[in-house]
Amino acid sequence: MKITLNRLNNNYHFNLENGRGHSVQLDNTSVENPKGASPMELLLMGIAGCSGIDIVSILKKQHLELSDFKMEVEGKRRDEVPKVFTEIHLKIFMKGKIPENKAKRAVDLSIEKYCSVSKMLEKTAKITYEILLNGKKI
Amino acid sequence: MKITLNRLNNNYHFNLENGRGHSVQLDNTSVENPKGASPMELLLMGIAGCSGIDIVSILKKQHLELSDFKMEVEGKRRDEVPKVFTEIHLKIFMKGKIPENKAKRAVDLSIEKYCSVSKMLEKTAKITYEILLNGKKI
Repeated sequence: MKITLNRLNNNYHFNLENGRGHSVQLDNTSVENPKGASPMELLLMGIAGCSGIDIVSILKKQHLELSDFKMEVEGKRRDEVPKVFTEIHLKIFMKGKIPENKAKRAVDLSIEKYCSVSKMLEKTAKITYEILLNGKKI
Repeated sequence: MKITLNRLNNNYHFNLENGRGHSVQLDNTSVENPKGASPMELLLMGIAGCSGIDIVSILKKQHLELSDFKMEVEGKRRDEVPKVFTEIHLKIFMKGKIPENKAKRAVDLSIEKYCSVSKMLEKTAKITYEILLNGKKI
């Protein structure tokens, strides 16, 4: 797996490309008006995406279809350099005819076992999660 | 720091938004024709961006301007689940009137000390790097 970074201005605006035609803009030039995401935001996006894929996939294998799926991921960083994440919290919103125990099991399996991003970030950050199934916290 | 994931189809195509107007598309629906990056690619993009910001910034503080800056980042994953990165290699291409020792020092400082993404991923992956300054490996 390989990605390429190119610099887009003489400051901190970069284009990141995955070699399969998809690119991500990253910008640290201005706090007020950045033209892209930040590197640490990409880690939170990575854990959300990785876990999202797992959860959808685990439920699909049981013929359980989600009618809606959303996630909010929040990270707390150290004050000192290096400003690593010390806490990452995932709030997972699911809708559909999914039994509570199966919804919970799918999330547990992802975070505890399958999600490679989570297994990397957990070495530094305490990862916690909560599930809202059809609006109810389970 | 907070990001939001929304599902864009009934498979594995997601939109990730950073709350400051910037979004990243992530897709795992089809290997042949994905509509976005993969979660693990986001980690490689994160380390490239984080380290890129550091290097440019450290050199700027010394009034050393890069005329060109590029990076290639390659990651090797475990075969078994969870398929974490075990090796990450950064190839850093710099051009400009930069003394070799200052170029090397800027990269060392980023990877060893400042880059929060690198400090998180190094717990699982061995991180190595090489520098090409004006086409010459240093």
